Amino acid sequence: MRQVYLDHIAATPLDPQVLEAMLPFLRDKFGNPQSLHSAGQEALVALEEARSRLAGLIGAEDSEVFFTSSGSEANNFALKGMALARRDKGNHLVLSAVEHQSVLHSVKSLEKLGFSSTLVPVDKYGLVDPEAVRRAIQKETVLVSVILASNEVGTVEPVIEIARICRAAGVPLHTDAVAAVGNIPVDVKELGVDALSLAADQFYGPKGSGALFVKKGARILPLIDGGIQEGGRRAGTENVAGIVGMGKAAELARARLSERQEGMKTLRDRLIDRLPQRVDRVYLTGHRERRLPHHASFCIEFIEGEAMLLNLDMKGIAVSSGSACTSRALKASHVLLAMGIDHALAQGSLVFSLVDSTTAEDIDYLLDVIPPVIDRLRKMSPLYTKFLEESQK
Amino acid sequence: MRQVYLDHIAATPLDPQVLEAMLPFLRDKFGNPQSLHSAGQEALVALEEARSRLAGLIGAEDSEVFFTSSGSEANNFALKGMALARRDKGNHLVLSAVEHQSVLHSVKSLEKLGFSSTLVPVDKYGLVDPEAVRRAIQKETVLVSVILASNEVGTVEPVIEIARICRAAGVPLHTDAVAAVGNIPVDVKELGVDALSLAADQFYGPKGSGALFVKKGARILPLIDGGIQEGGRRAGTENVAGIVGMGKAAELARARLSERQEGMKTLRDRLIDRLPQRVDRVYLTGHRERRLPHHASFCIEFIEGEAMLLNLDMKGIAVSSGSACTSRALKASHVLLAMGIDHALAQGSLVFSLVDSTTAEDIDYLLDVIPPVIDRLRKMSPLYTKFLEESQK
Repeated sequence: MRQVYLDHIAATPLDPQVLEAMLPFLRDKFGNPQSLHSAGQEALVALEEARSRLAGLIGAEDSEVFFTSSGSEANNFALKGMALARRDKGNHLVLSAVEHQSVLHSVKSLEKLGFSSTLVPVDKYGLVDPEAVRRAIQKETVLVSVILASNEVGTVEPVIEIARICRAAGVPLHTDAVAAVGNIPVDVKELGVDALSLAADQFYGPKGSGALFVKKGARILPLIDGGIQEGGRRAGTENVAGIVGMGKAAELARARLSERQEGMKTLRDRLIDRLPQRVDRVYLTGHRERRLPHHASFCIEFIEGEAMLLNLDMKGIAVSSGSACTSRALKASHVLLAMGIDHALAQGSLVFSLVDSTTAEDIDYLLDVIPPVIDRLRKMSPLYTKFLEESQK
Repeated sequence: MRQVYLDHIAATPLDPQVLEAMLPFLRDKFGNPQSLHSAGQEALVALEEARSRLAGLIGAEDSEVFFTSSGSEANNFALKGMALARRDKGNHLVLSAVEHQSVLHSVKSLEKLGFSSTLVPVDKYGLVDPEAVRRAIQKETVLVSVILASNEVGTVEPVIEIARICRAAGVPLHTDAVAAVGNIPVDVKELGVDALSLAADQFYGPKGSGALFVKKGARILPLIDGGIQEGGRRAGTENVAGIVGMGKAAELARARLSERQEGMKTLRDRLIDRLPQRVDRVYLTGHRERRLPHHASFCIEFIEGEAMLLNLDMKGIAVSSGSACTSRALKASHVLLAMGIDHALAQGSLVFSLVDSTTAEDIDYLLDVIPPVIDRLRKMSPLYTKFLEESQK
């Protein structure tokens, strides 16, 4: 059976060149980068080379990049570390309604420590209005956090405009760029952000490797206290092989970005354009143009996303119904609800996210497989039966 | 040149069988364990098998094991998560003076949030007196943390006795078992602890993989908030390959533990017995019997540990001068100072920690190399010259 992996947002495959770069550090080069002997030095040199490659991908200085174990850790580090470091300035946070769970829940934890927050709403495309951010900022606001691109609906937020507003207000801005980095051009200076989270498994690097960019001079407390790793800002023996892999993946992403983007966009548009021609009552979620090049997300009426996903899996097609971080919770996505999509329709969410090996044949296979699956599932839906009866009256 | 790696406490080499187990998850099996499709299921099954293997090594239930990215993260998770979860009960912590930096600094961060702490002193062997822990526990105490075995001096603490005292006082006990797990028998039920930290790179598993055991029913808040991974207690896409590697390493450690222990002990004792015969004014640090089987640590008078380390490195011998997590800070170890070793002597700290490939020939090579190196370094020391002059009077 044909295998079609369309779940980039859950995890990308590891690029073979990335694995090649990692292997020496899983074999002979096993030193701890903090050790002063040659084995340690060798690991340290590799670590700093990886830092430099990653910094190069996002236009940062090497010293502004801090390794973490995931995008979620980077988000926790940014939110908790910056809020707690600026506690003397105030105790209020501003964030959008479409943030990742790791941002939302970090804020909930901060609320237990005396912080309060304002959630900025989004429009039906999931877009944050920069003016709404301006209005949400108070005298007590110590941090704003707005996602750069949504893993669930693909929408790319106007972070440049939001950064301008934050700068004018003297409030630092963090952006969760996990779904964006390596897939669209991301430059921290152009964006004008003070902190930015990323994860290697979104650009053909290994799981277990992420990073936080923290602008020089920005105040932040560690999330993981301890040794002197990462300039004392993130303790713990470094995942050397993973970091080296992330560095290699960053180098490859930088070299391939524009080509990869264009190829993906064409295939993505093929899916976005054709799926609604093949199936009725299927709606694109997120913005049509301002979206990730590898991302096509829909809500399908009278369908449960999970049932759809499992049926497609039986046809060799891997997709998701939203964020992998909550998929097993089987709840309607807070992102879709924030966009005004009703609860029933939000249950029919499906996300197709392309990887660099995706072909036009894969998309066509998908387009052939989907309609009969939907037909079959809808026939089992009492709501659909009722809808059919009513529409025939 | 002969290469002799004696820096287990910084990091062990990866067992080739461990790498073999990891490779499929760095190649075709790249699914996200939270994805509902087959690629996700495959990763989830591997994750749970690893959890089970790790639980087996420490006598825990599978559901009591939470994956982290390092021992330091596990320590932060335990200290901050348990203290904050029990804040309604009080705001006082008890810990020993010889804890790892990640425990000490977690407590410092908690102090900024309104906690206070009592540091329990140790004797000249680095041993904590259980009675001193009993006296340190107050009505407001919400957590006790005592290291199981010191990475710096090898001493194994009387955690069973301390756990008995904590239980009687109704206060949970966390133990940092990073240096111990996989190297001595560790059973959470026998120990009677409520939480226990470990790291794979201390038993021939990969860097970037650790875990926290949390006893069923013990209250703990996440350190990393977000998705539903690890039962909602530790968010972030799992480092599947790393976790699979840790599981395999745990399985191997369990099978090989007694044999490995005996072999190491013999070689360790060869070094502990013979080094002071070859060189004068060299003192074993830590306890002679209650110590890790792979651990031989010394303070060498009129010597700087770092100079010694670099000179041995030139002879192909990798050792450390203390904890890798602070080695580049070049400060006298808080552990040695807590044991009453004076500042000057503490600077001459050297830790030889054996790995499973260490041979008697390696130890003998070391024993041959060390004396002339020490001679040469001492000749450059004004303190030593002064000492010689005075002793010849």
